[in-house]
Amino acid sequence: MTSKRIAVLTSGGDAPGMNACIRAIVVACEGAGHTIIGFEHGYNGLLEQNWRKLDSKKVHNIIQRGGTILRSARCKTFKQDASGQLAANNLDELAIDALIVIGGDGSFRGAVHLGKFWGGQVIGLPGTIDNDIYGCDATIGYYTAIDTAVSSIDKVRDTADAFERIFLVEVMGRHAGFLGASAALAGAANYVILPELFTDPESVLNEIQQQVAIHRQRYGHESYIIVLTENLWPSGINALAEALETRTDGEVRPVILGHVQRGGSPVSQDRILATTLGVQAVRSIEQGKNGIMVATAQGDVVEVALEETWQHKKTLGNTLTHCMLTMLNERHHWP
Amino acid sequence: MTSKRIAVLTSGGDAPGMNACIRAIVVACEGAGHTIIGFEHGYNGLLEQNWRKLDSKKVHNIIQRGGTILRSARCKTFKQDASGQLAANNLDELAIDALIVIGGDGSFRGAVHLGKFWGGQVIGLPGTIDNDIYGCDATIGYYTAIDTAVSSIDKVRDTADAFERIFLVEVMGRHAGFLGASAALAGAANYVILPELFTDPESVLNEIQQQVAIHRQRYGHESYIIVLTENLWPSGINALAEALETRTDGEVRPVILGHVQRGGSPVSQDRILATTLGVQAVRSIEQGKNGIMVATAQGDVVEVALEETWQHKKTLGNTLTHCMLTMLNERHHWP
Amino acid sequence: MTSKRIAVLTSGGDAPGMNACIRAIVVACEGAGHTIIGFEHGYNGLLEQNWRKLDSKKVHNIIQRGGTILRSARCKTFKQDASGQLAANNLDELAIDALIVIGGDGSFRGAVHLGKFWGGQVIGLPGTIDNDIYGCDATIGYYTAIDTAVSSIDKVRDTADAFERIFLVEVMGRHAGFLGASAALAGAANYVILPELFTDPESVLNEIQQQVAIHRQRYGHESYIIVLTENLWPSGINALAEALETRTDGEVRPVILGHVQRGGSPVSQDRILATTLGVQAVRSIEQGKNGIMVATAQGDVVEVALEETWQHKKTLGNTLTHCMLTMLNERHHWP
Amino acid sequence: MTSKRIAVLTSGGDAPGMNACIRAIVVACEGAGHTIIGFEHGYNGLLEQNWRKLDSKKVHNIIQRGGTILRSARCKTFKQDASGQLAANNLDELAIDALIVIGGDGSFRGAVHLGKFWGGQVIGLPGTIDNDIYGCDATIGYYTAIDTAVSSIDKVRDTADAFERIFLVEVMGRHAGFLGASAALAGAANYVILPELFTDPESVLNEIQQQVAIHRQRYGHESYIIVLTENLWPSGINALAEALETRTDGEVRPVILGHVQRGGSPVSQDRILATTLGVQAVRSIEQGKNGIMVATAQGDVVEVALEETWQHKKTLGNTLTHCMLTMLNERHHWP
Repeated sequence: MTSKRIAVLTSGGDAPGMNACIRAIVVACEGAGHTIIGFEHGYNGLLEQNWRKLDSKKVHNIIQRGGTILRSARCKTFKQDASGQLAANNLDELAIDALIVIGGDGSFRGAVHLGKFWGGQVIGLPGTIDNDIYGCDATIGYYTAIDTAVSSIDKVRDTADAFERIFLVEVMGRHAGFLGASAALAGAANYVILPELFTDPESVLNEIQQQVAIHRQRYGHESYIIVLTENLWPSGINALAEALETRTDGEVRPVILGHVQRGGSPVSQDRILATTLGVQAVRSIEQGKNGIMVATAQGDVVEVALEETWQHKKTLGNTLTHCMLTMLNERHHWP
Repeated sequence: MTSKRIAVLTSGGDAPGMNACIRAIVVACEGAGHTIIGFEHGYNGLLEQNWRKLDSKKVHNIIQRGGTILRSARCKTFKQDASGQLAANNLDELAIDALIVIGGDGSFRGAVHLGKFWGGQVIGLPGTIDNDIYGCDATIGYYTAIDTAVSSIDKVRDTADAFERIFLVEVMGRHAGFLGASAALAGAANYVILPELFTDPESVLNEIQQQVAIHRQRYGHESYIIVLTENLWPSGINALAEALETRTDGEVRPVILGHVQRGGSPVSQDRILATTLGVQAVRSIEQGKNGIMVATAQGDVVEVALEETWQHKKTLGNTLTHCMLTMLNERHHWP
Repeated sequence: MTSKRIAVLTSGGDAPGMNACIRAIVVACEGAGHTIIGFEHGYNGLLEQNWRKLDSKKVHNIIQRGGTILRSARCKTFKQDASGQLAANNLDELAIDALIVIGGDGSFRGAVHLGKFWGGQVIGLPGTIDNDIYGCDATIGYYTAIDTAVSSIDKVRDTADAFERIFLVEVMGRHAGFLGASAALAGAANYVILPELFTDPESVLNEIQQQVAIHRQRYGHESYIIVLTENLWPSGINALAEALETRTDGEVRPVILGHVQRGGSPVSQDRILATTLGVQAVRSIEQGKNGIMVATAQGDVVEVALEETWQHKKTLGNTLTHCMLTMLNERHHWP
Repeated sequence: MTSKRIAVLTSGGDAPGMNACIRAIVVACEGAGHTIIGFEHGYNGLLEQNWRKLDSKKVHNIIQRGGTILRSARCKTFKQDASGQLAANNLDELAIDALIVIGGDGSFRGAVHLGKFWGGQVIGLPGTIDNDIYGCDATIGYYTAIDTAVSSIDKVRDTADAFERIFLVEVMGRHAGFLGASAALAGAANYVILPELFTDPESVLNEIQQQVAIHRQRYGHESYIIVLTENLWPSGINALAEALETRTDGEVRPVILGHVQRGGSPVSQDRILATTLGVQAVRSIEQGKNGIMVATAQGDVVEVALEETWQHKKTLGNTLTHCMLTMLNERHHWP
């Protein structure tokens, strides 16, 4: 097998497990005799020739660290043709054969844009806490973000139970409900407001009002926890809390988990996913693949054309939806 | 030794370790042959005769649980004379010899108020995450709240480093800076805004602007983390974030830790403090003490008149202040 | 839909997530109008008529708790015909329509044995930290056990790095390498000794000796971590440590993780798996299924005949094996 | 104030918080204009001139990391006069004014030995998970080790409760019972075997046998957890487990926590202690102090002659002992 010159960058919102993925790529490259370099600050490093050589010593003891040692950034100018051409020139100057991009769908669009100007291989690996990339079961960072959200909900439930209050917990997700649905299920929430289930504010308020009344009748004034996806409630979480106070005649406390969800030591499932994808990306490069995302779906490693990852909309899936409707929102029937 | 009839309640904001404290009281009572009952929902249970008998079987496997099995609540009407008298009657009806109140300074005021109408012994144990009670080194729940805040700051630093952003983290503390100071120190923050150090918004903004400029010059665009105590910035954390964006010409992300800080499994130091105070409260009751808070100060168990706990203002102390000024806010001089 | 009378028990080694599963079954039953009872101490409760009625109030706030509220036990006499008959009689006396057994393969054999004497529906749900049940991707408790092991390995690496020592970490797994392989990968171990890869002690010692020599040459005297599955090394972990001290001329510290791996609050993935399976088990009962394990495989819910779960041997799979050989044991080639 | 040239090393068993302490020393030095270097591998680096310059950039983002970036080691030859002289020469050659040693009592003996040959200032900071240094309330790493042990005991209790077994948990402590006592109290153990309370094996076995019988009578076959300090039971923990199986006619599972207790991200209290001591060590150097340990006792910063730290034996203290006898070992009386 010919040894190759491979580059890697992390782009977009950072996600726990990006370091584990970088480490796997470096170890796999080193074992197979490939050269591996890393660009800093996402596509910015590609444009500014900001890079460094990586080896297994430099990635020792990073598997457990959040963030990314290559730093990340958004790069608004990258969609321009001049940027694509400049990046291609820079890659050619360094004699790079293949570039691995770890990031979300914006990063993948950048990768496809680059492919128009550059003849090398481009491989995407899904890295975002939102899990909103079509074609894969899970994205690197998603499992850890769920755990972070759930551990916060567990804490909120302690105080909610002690005070018998309603709590409203806002989780991330951009425009997808994966994080919200999983956190609500694993956090034993009582109600969840997701983009995928959202109808209109008035209907949601009515339903919650009814459910809380039933809940109180059945359990007394026990705690009631509602999980809400960000960017969803038109007037924001504080307005929702106030509306619910009026409707339920009780205290409603809003909690915004925010950027805490992006950090933290990756949980094992994210480390294993990140390591698997890093190893498989190097393998795909050795096999000459180009323009694909390497991911896992239905328990197998898959390769998906980068364009497909954003052309289709990923859905919550039947199993999760069934489970959610049975356990949450007091809708005890199969859809 | 005569066996006594002892009651316990938790009042005010819940704090991790309250269950550990209840457990210690129950085990100590049972071992010494005292009877022990618990009132539910703080002083409300005392007024409404809402109580249950406790024994060591009922407190098995609760030491690690956040919240309080006795529930807590605020009780606005308790300061009235009628409430004090009603509570006294209810306690006498149950032939209670001594009442242990676990809570903050509002709860202690309630205990003193009760003492005007009731001849039994009243013992307070400091339980609040804010550590704002005069006469003790630490309150039950304070250590855990620090750890919760610090673990969130650790996560924020991951993403702050990856993106080289400024983050603004709001912690609880009511009107005291203990939680803010400790979280900032243990979280390796760069700047802290506390009631005890606060001058005026303009000065703080100026200082941060200068420090960030120095920081960037020295370290490049590395992350910069500011810890802020709640209830302090006049126009709120979002306004502060916006003002800082203008001043520093960079992204500033606000994170409000909120009620997550009240929950969680208590860390060892809170469990040990809570257990020690529970055991000592029973001992003080056996010795006939009344109207006191049992606490630890300078490493010893102390008894402090309940009134003193709110008449004096607890200060951060020289050691912590020195340490903070050396490590934070870039003021490298001894005050 | 006719409402049913359903019973549940947990059997064999306990696993984190069993409580989450019980909770899901109870909530799903209550929502659909079924009656649900729980037997205590596994099959023992079935023989001794030791049971209690469950409802959603009794399973509030247990999703995050390790162990099982129904207790577990092994029941050696259950394989006898008399036990099977007695259990059948007891179930009929209680007019139970369906029994859900949460446990490992020993528990499933018990379920099949019961089926010979009882006409009701028997449903198995895979619950064991070992993940050694054929026909499913993961068993309830497996994800948490990996995380517990990995968090211990992370701690060991701190001290291993500080002292530049070799550490030998023994994880559970009974006779399967799932836990060992996953913990080694996610813990960034350097070498792993698994039943699936095991040849003979001498070869393993030789290989480690060589690898450590290469490792030291390449990295200096950095830490070196070896993960070992229990029940595998003929003379035990302490003997292995001594043999390695001779071979590598350095300190080798053994660490036995032991029963700590069985406990702990379940991670989100175990809670979600447990909740999904609990909900689906009730659904399968409604559909009249019998003698099956309900599980997830390749991302879907599946039903597998109980006998099949132990008649086939579950293998590590190609993806995990490839990944392991690339990242561990310094064998950088595709098998 | 004259600026100084200061060196730091970590020695003996590593402890969580050593990095936080190094960081504080570096930041405090930099702020005050001192030069700061670090020797690697404890006293070995001093003998082998293995050192590097430190600055605040190099200690960014290490406060939360276990282990020590300066590595640690034992150095058996350091007690020889030739070593003391060589170290003194090396320090003089580098024009070092003051050396800070973070470690346990062996490390402090080395510091005093060095003082015989070297005219510079020597300052010790207590760093060991065992807390067995006279003159201070707590040593750096002690709080984290308690939490690690307690979190393992919490997990063991899950499975102990599910199976109603006796568990025997061995914690570190060298020859002192601090870690054992604190872990037993905070872990809600039922019995603790410590050097400070130890009489003879036969008496301990008799007492446990009696207590378990009482415990079973009172609570049924609930779990029973015994904490044991290492190096104490003559024939080892496995022999103790077997003896207890005979005595109690039930399963007894031994769990050895081992080296896991040395690692992990330091809890807040260790970070604050480590930071405080690092800052105060620099202050003591500025004040010309020599031959002392800087520590905290009774809530204040204290300076103790290094020799005193091992000439006196640190005791558990009355409060802890009272608390332990009330909560554990079923001895419900004041000593």
